[in-house]
Amino acid sequence: MFSHNKRLQYSVRVSECNPALANLMLEQFGGPQGELAAAMRYFTQALAEEDPGRKDMLLDIATEELSHLEVIGSIVAMLNKGAKGELAEGVAAEAELFRSLQGAGNDSHVTQLLYGGGPALTNSGGQLWTAGYIDSIGEPTCDLRSNIAAEARAKIVYERLINVTTDPGVRDALGFLMTREVSHQKSFEKALYAIEPNFPPGKLPPMEPFDKVYVDTSQGPGNMRGPWNSDEHFEYVDGKDARAVDGGDGQASVELSTPQAQAVEAMARRTASDPERDRPTGADIGGEKKR
Amino acid sequence: MFSHNKRLQYSVRVSECNPALANLMLEQFGGPQGELAAAMRYFTQALAEEDPGRKDMLLDIATEELSHLEVIGSIVAMLNKGAKGELAEGVAAEAELFRSLQGAGNDSHVTQLLYGGGPALTNSGGQLWTAGYIDSIGEPTCDLRSNIAAEARAKIVYERLINVTTDPGVRDALGFLMTREVSHQKSFEKALYAIEPNFPPGKLPPMEPFDKVYVDTSQGPGNMRGPWNSDEHFEYVDGKDARAVDGGDGQASVELSTPQAQAVEAMARRTASDPERDRPTGADIGGEKKR
Amino acid sequence: MFSHNKRLQYSVRVSECNPALANLMLEQFGGPQGELAAAMRYFTQALAEEDPGRKDMLLDIATEELSHLEVIGSIVAMLNKGAKGELAEGVAAEAELFRSLQGAGNDSHVTQLLYGGGPALTNSGGQLWTAGYIDSIGEPTCDLRSNIAAEARAKIVYERLINVTTDPGVRDALGFLMTREVSHQKSFEKALYAIEPNFPPGKLPPMEPFDKVYVDTSQGPGNMRGPWNSDEHFEYVDGKDARAVDGGDGQASVELSTPQAQAVEAMARRTASDPERDRPTGADIGGEKKR
Amino acid sequence: MFSHNKRLQYSVRVSECNPALANLMLEQFGGPQGELAAAMRYFTQALAEEDPGRKDMLLDIATEELSHLEVIGSIVAMLNKGAKGELAEGVAAEAELFRSLQGAGNDSHVTQLLYGGGPALTNSGGQLWTAGYIDSIGEPTCDLRSNIAAEARAKIVYERLINVTTDPGVRDALGFLMTREVSHQKSFEKALYAIEPNFPPGKLPPMEPFDKVYVDTSQGPGNMRGPWNSDEHFEYVDGKDARAVDGGDGQASVELSTPQAQAVEAMARRTASDPERDRPTGADIGGEKKR
Amino acid sequence: MFSHNKRLQYSVRVSECNPALANLMLEQFGGPQGELAAAMRYFTQALAEEDPGRKDMLLDIATEELSHLEVIGSIVAMLNKGAKGELAEGVAAEAELFRSLQGAGNDSHVTQLLYGGGPALTNSGGQLWTAGYIDSIGEPTCDLRSNIAAEARAKIVYERLINVTTDPGVRDALGFLMTREVSHQKSFEKALYAIEPNFPPGKLPPMEPFDKVYVDTSQGPGNMRGPWNSDEHFEYVDGKDARAVDGGDGQASVELSTPQAQAVEAMARRTASDPERDRPTGADIGGEKKR
Amino acid sequence: MFSHNKRLQYSVRVSECNPALANLMLEQFGGPQGELAAAMRYFTQALAEEDPGRKDMLLDIATEELSHLEVIGSIVAMLNKGAKGELAEGVAAEAELFRSLQGAGNDSHVTQLLYGGGPALTNSGGQLWTAGYIDSIGEPTCDLRSNIAAEARAKIVYERLINVTTDPGVRDALGFLMTREVSHQKSFEKALYAIEPNFPPGKLPPMEPFDKVYVDTSQGPGNMRGPWNSDEHFEYVDGKDARAVDGGDGQASVELSTPQAQAVEAMARRTASDPERDRPTGADIGGEKKR
Repeated sequence: MFSHNKRLQYSVRVSECNPALANLMLEQFGGPQGELAAAMRYFTQALAEEDPGRKDMLLDIATEELSHLEVIGSIVAMLNKGAKGELAEGVAAEAELFRSLQGAGNDSHVTQLLYGGGPALTNSGGQLWTAGYIDSIGEPTCDLRSNIAAEARAKIVYERLINVTTDPGVRDALGFLMTREVSHQKSFEKALYAIEPNFPPGKLPPMEPFDKVYVDTSQGPGNMRGPWNSDEHFEYVDGKDARAVDGGDGQASVELSTPQAQAVEAMARRTASDPERDRPTGADIGGEKKR
Repeated sequence: MFSHNKRLQYSVRVSECNPALANLMLEQFGGPQGELAAAMRYFTQALAEEDPGRKDMLLDIATEELSHLEVIGSIVAMLNKGAKGELAEGVAAEAELFRSLQGAGNDSHVTQLLYGGGPALTNSGGQLWTAGYIDSIGEPTCDLRSNIAAEARAKIVYERLINVTTDPGVRDALGFLMTREVSHQKSFEKALYAIEPNFPPGKLPPMEPFDKVYVDTSQGPGNMRGPWNSDEHFEYVDGKDARAVDGGDGQASVELSTPQAQAVEAMARRTASDPERDRPTGADIGGEKKR
Repeated sequence: MFSHNKRLQYSVRVSECNPALANLMLEQFGGPQGELAAAMRYFTQALAEEDPGRKDMLLDIATEELSHLEVIGSIVAMLNKGAKGELAEGVAAEAELFRSLQGAGNDSHVTQLLYGGGPALTNSGGQLWTAGYIDSIGEPTCDLRSNIAAEARAKIVYERLINVTTDPGVRDALGFLMTREVSHQKSFEKALYAIEPNFPPGKLPPMEPFDKVYVDTSQGPGNMRGPWNSDEHFEYVDGKDARAVDGGDGQASVELSTPQAQAVEAMARRTASDPERDRPTGADIGGEKKR
Repeated sequence: MFSHNKRLQYSVRVSECNPALANLMLEQFGGPQGELAAAMRYFTQALAEEDPGRKDMLLDIATEELSHLEVIGSIVAMLNKGAKGELAEGVAAEAELFRSLQGAGNDSHVTQLLYGGGPALTNSGGQLWTAGYIDSIGEPTCDLRSNIAAEARAKIVYERLINVTTDPGVRDALGFLMTREVSHQKSFEKALYAIEPNFPPGKLPPMEPFDKVYVDTSQGPGNMRGPWNSDEHFEYVDGKDARAVDGGDGQASVELSTPQAQAVEAMARRTASDPERDRPTGADIGGEKKR
Repeated sequence: MFSHNKRLQYSVRVSECNPALANLMLEQFGGPQGELAAAMRYFTQALAEEDPGRKDMLLDIATEELSHLEVIGSIVAMLNKGAKGELAEGVAAEAELFRSLQGAGNDSHVTQLLYGGGPALTNSGGQLWTAGYIDSIGEPTCDLRSNIAAEARAKIVYERLINVTTDPGVRDALGFLMTREVSHQKSFEKALYAIEPNFPPGKLPPMEPFDKVYVDTSQGPGNMRGPWNSDEHFEYVDGKDARAVDGGDGQASVELSTPQAQAVEAMARRTASDPERDRPTGADIGGEKKR
Repeated sequence: MFSHNKRLQYSVRVSECNPALANLMLEQFGGPQGELAAAMRYFTQALAEEDPGRKDMLLDIATEELSHLEVIGSIVAMLNKGAKGELAEGVAAEAELFRSLQGAGNDSHVTQLLYGGGPALTNSGGQLWTAGYIDSIGEPTCDLRSNIAAEARAKIVYERLINVTTDPGVRDALGFLMTREVSHQKSFEKALYAIEPNFPPGKLPPMEPFDKVYVDTSQGPGNMRGPWNSDEHFEYVDGKDARAVDGGDGQASVELSTPQAQAVEAMARRTASDPERDRPTGADIGGEKKR
């Protein structure tokens, strides 16, 4: 069970109201690489986890991500606070409020008009957060790799936000949040390698020799070789040789029962295209000019 | 530019119509771990990639994933073919068609009624494919990790599908597709380590010492230690000590201009809650029994 | 900031594996009336709240909803645990695993195949959780009413789940969760009435007399009167009298600049329909029978 | 402005409660080819339409589609009515209610548990209705073609529903609704051809000779010729000849300013992959077996 | 069934083309608090409603909301009309059209380019309308509360739009629409209290004493008391005392059959993390600097 | 199966970095009328197509659309390339980067911050691509009409993009892509009319006389007649005559079993509204002014 303390994990000191910057920050609140996605990713994994060590780690990090959600959400709220008051109270002339809404940019109009200046679970473009952002599948050798990648991505989005932020208090808090992603990535890496073996994931063995084949399907100028397709590790196959790799005819077929075959045949006949039937079409008629 | 050959990369031989099984296969057609997501993930990365080696590799693998999309889609089409004909032509009595739709299960009713038995870009529950499944962010040390994780996940979903499939032709094709994920994962791993250094991702250094801190935020029965939070690699911090780690007061604050401060104050006054004002509420009135 | 204890707020004792029941429980995990929606609803409101009493209450209840998310998620995990193991390890023949997946129903095939038996942020039909479920707009006299309604809805979905559950441990935990919604609704009601006045919400006065008009737009058999449209409270107006209520012509018009007017005129001319031009159409051609 | 009469456009007489059939009907209530999509498609087009004839027609048909939404929604409500009462009142033992929920199938569990048996704006798989289903773009020669296609699709989904329905009252009403789609398609066809010319849509002429080229990009077994790619209408081009059709090098390039070029160069250097650098990877380490 | 009159319920007189303002108006057309959501909310409730008084009221208000959708949509169409013509006809130089598209702001570029200046079922940020906005669950004591809250929210979004609009004709129509929300809220309130009792919603009684408990889960600076958690109405409980409230161990458990237990055990063994196994990881390798 | 050549189908020469223009181009990359939607529309149809001619044509065009996706994506990548480098490397001061992000407009901040300047599968407003854009239903006389409409729409969105683009290389490539839509529309028209008959779609005949009825549901100023509702083709019926067209009572009814009828009756009684019961409501209490 959770408990909460009204102190933030990291103090947030914003030097002035800036709704456009607030809106950019939403990427890490309600965006795909943001803190809600992180918290829910680890929390849902933890609930079904049998391994006591991983379960504890996932809960530790999920809980911390909730505290980060609070920090970034508080930054958004502070950056919007002045504009929120002005719009709610209608203290200025309409033309002035329109100009300031209009001029702020970065989709902050959505945040002001629809969400009243509060942190919303959208990204900086107003796209609603969706659980489609969470890719957990309940197999730890996959989920830990997904977590490693997720932390790496979140680190970079924080880096980009820092690169466009001048407010020192906001930069400071962003720097902290960015750093914790690095730390979490390290923990997930250690946890992955504490499973032995962890590659290939799962139980079923690959079907030889296709696990060592590299197909050169993209040809023309710029074809390259490297360790990712080198002869040392892979059998390098020409993708232009359009033959089915199983040695078969490359067709798709199914055995149908007699009534099924008859129904399919009837459908095919009813909707058959006649290659000889070249009729004037809607486009032909429609293309005629007005006289 | 792309070209196509009507031969499949792997021949598909289905032994009988089975719409319920067809529907499960949709996970790898229009589901989050499926082949469209894979192809689009690598293809969009390739378009903005500057490094010639990675660009070539991403295009090679993206193109092959499109061929896999064709294989799994052909499996779906074959498994549905008989049922599709029967529904389209209405060859049986309504009660019989209802029963067979009803009995098939696994949401195959959506595939039959709405998509006419064709492979649809949904998962096995009818959830529409969304670009939210793709997590590319345009930084190769992140995107390659995302790709590694994605291949691992796809391998497992194929493994689960194989575990519930008896049709030998379908099993065979699924085994091939599963295997290719293993091979692609290897390539992405090699490509990641061909970048030096690749950790931490990006350019900005972490803020010390927070990159080495592990916060024990989840306590109580089941607390564990391991390499992911060991003293050797981390400073292990008690998460119950609710103090802001920056040494500040853990508050969020913002400097407002005078008009902003006045507007915020007016708004606060207008919407203030009076802790002394304990009024009968809608629930109080609504809870009264009929006399 | 948050902390966590691995003890649940309410113990969960499940008497046997039941993936179909597990799937129904997802309504309160990742469904629109579920605990994530509740927690995020109150948490995001709290972050932008200026009133100290409401802020504290919102954080208290948001935090408890996270603990409820953990309880309902643990129920899902326990109900799926056996089936998860069997699918992951492929311990039975494929036909048997297919039958048990197929027979379970209630979309549990998605949970098993895609999410590996773990609690996923979807509803019982596999629909991904979306922030569109959260209707907070940053005005407390609205948000508290939204919260009251949300608690009422959640109470009922728990009631329906209890009505279809025989497992005594699950019923017990559901009863607790259902009850807490009642308690939270009471708190939100009290908080709403601690704001004076709280109706109509906001600052702008309504435009008289339209705030007291009731338009009888739906006529015919079954027209009814009651306090919601009584003469005591409303002016009852006949909706069939199709006149603009402002006394105007009921038209929409805009003043255009000359270049705009010319462009609109050109567009209208280019795409004008000629009511005299009755041409054979695609449907006419297409309707001709094969000879 | 709209008015309403509580009589349906077509009487609905359902012979018994059938939640599984109810759920299939949702395809035409909240599904992509359903009546809400139709009504909103035409209504939004009408609002921005300048041509008086099309505007009137669009409003006529939009309004009728709302009446159809009411008919199909009433069918759903009637088919669910008994089951709704039983679940709401909990009149039977939990095991019995679970079995009847479970056994009904076709995702009717979502309709019962979440929506209380009422018609919900989802398709038969529980997928939430989205405005992404509406493809209006504000150019009548396109929108009328979209409407023609939409009516054709709706006709077929009704046909499929009729094919699986035995209840005579439901079949009767579905037959009426199906028929109206045919009639609407005819009107949209006539309206399209009342614009002269209507092909190609819009104002900009195509770039010759590419409007007459057909590229044979898919080769191998099954290559076919017909009026859609005949020499009479098209220049038939071999898609395997991988040359840029503009006669250029088929490359993408951009002129960068000096600072931009330097930044891109720095980024490329930082993230360069070294084709010679073949390091052991995570997969290599992870693949090592436990000793 | 519905009928329509081409007169608007309220005349719309727009004084000049303003695509940026048009886009803000979309919040009440295709946004979550807008008129389509309102109309569909009440209409779908009406279809399954048994009570004749509520059914009539829901149809009256749903129908009026459709007329409001028409008014707000007409405002959008008028505000966009000039810009639509200019883009469609390409009457100005490309650079000028780009600048005007670019400069307008508020996401009006989406409305112009994609929707051709017509009112689209999106909010002001381009987010597609989704049925996830509608929270009806088929229990009137909940749905009426949801409706009350929805009307309150819509009132406020209209208020914010008025606060940023200078065009007198648009302000006038917005004022009318805002006012009708107040009137509808009153009707829904009266209808809720015409049900006796209406609290708690539903049939199952709460589980005592948890309906009177308030858990103080958020502690630290700013803890407050008020009627929402006062001793008069609630038992105030300390949320830091991390014990399961049922007196149990706060664990989640399930009884597994023997084969299930064996499968789970096998899975646990296969994916066990070894807390002693501290291996170099991908991050360790990846962090090594180029030599 | 697919293969790829790194040459584009059309060379892309961009004259300068322009993120705002890049973002507009996303409409045809990840927007509803864009190239991914086109490719997937035809590809999924092809997989289930039995007719060899249509299958070949669908594969030819689907494959070409993938090549178009590559062209438009390369335009996006080139237009963003400079800005991407600057943000990734943080080469300028934060204030400058913020200004350039802010000033660019057209939602390019999302593309820069979240997607790192790469082409993302969103439209120009950041809306994630969804398979809801694809309307294939597996009946060729519908799907071909849908394809015709889709090509017409895509042609127009390209036309609008050309109208706002000054860069000659981009205009050139857009002109090519626009032209190919015209050519594809022609092929789909020919293929539709090669099926005989193709109207009405499907197998079930319409229910006479309703296929020839036109209902004048929208009346008042602006009522028009034309070929779409002329007496020559239609029976023109007055929509204000609110009678059920089947001659029945226009009611919805269902036969319930006795237990069902009792449950429904109990539910109706429990939630009955009493038209005589006019109680003070939450709004009445809430409207009282502070004393």
